[in-house]
Amino acid sequence: MDRTLLGLGGKRPSEMDQLPDAYASACPTRQALDRIADKWTVLILGLLESGPMRFNQLRREIEGISQKMLSQTLKSLERDGLVSRRAFATVPVTVEYSITPLGATLAETLVPLRMWAETHIAQMLEARAAYDRSEDDAPVRLDVA
Amino acid sequence: MDRTLLGLGGKRPSEMDQLPDAYASACPTRQALDRIADKWTVLILGLLESGPMRFNQLRREIEGISQKMLSQTLKSLERDGLVSRRAFATVPVTVEYSITPLGATLAETLVPLRMWAETHIAQMLEARAAYDRSEDDAPVRLDVA
Repeated sequence: MDRTLLGLGGKRPSEMDQLPDAYASACPTRQALDRIADKWTVLILGLLESGPMRFNQLRREIEGISQKMLSQTLKSLERDGLVSRRAFATVPVTVEYSITPLGATLAETLVPLRMWAETHIAQMLEARAAYDRSEDDAPVRLDVA
Repeated sequence: MDRTLLGLGGKRPSEMDQLPDAYASACPTRQALDRIADKWTVLILGLLESGPMRFNQLRREIEGISQKMLSQTLKSLERDGLVSRRAFATVPVTVEYSITPLGATLAETLVPLRMWAETHIAQMLEARAAYDRSEDDAPVRLDVA
């Protein structure tokens, strides 16, 4: 199948040996997708777009995120050059996170996604309710094909 | 903090009691984000955009996805009205998945995301390499703030 038809292909910079293919588990594009397509990434970048924040501020703002998950996600975002981390030699140590120029370009592309969530949430909830009603008397599903 | 400034707020349809807030773990917008911001969702919708596919076809095309993960993701997408499932009474049973009109509107918003991954993957990989080099002789990190 021609991946370029799916909008996931297209020619890559010369340093890449093969056409990018997010459907191939070893392709760097899959890794990029892994990073981008993550709700914590979306929420963290959404906050840092407005300005730098400290670890505990982020944790307070993002309800339901564990300390471990926030720490891991920030570390991944830092590693990928999307967020920068700055430590201040205060007692106790103060650590501040900010969005990088690269992260800001990603944050922009997330706007249509958030708009979709806002404008289609009602339709999604209706679909869910209808599905759950129909599941009550549905026969056993077979996922063989 | 005013969420509307973050692009995650805005007025909601009248059936909602409160302003949507993806930062609140119980808000439906968080659930929508959970569904959208998922690499398997992106990959599955990317394939179904081109036409209906059977379970095993999807599994073959999406390298590295387990049968269980594909089955779960498809079921969630179906529940959310993004994908529809049709079973044919063949022997063995044939099950076909296709994108719904609602799913197609989501698939459209994912295009900028895929374009970002394609155009910025090299920068992300460079950032990673630089980070990994600097980590080799970095002091212990403290995430307290």
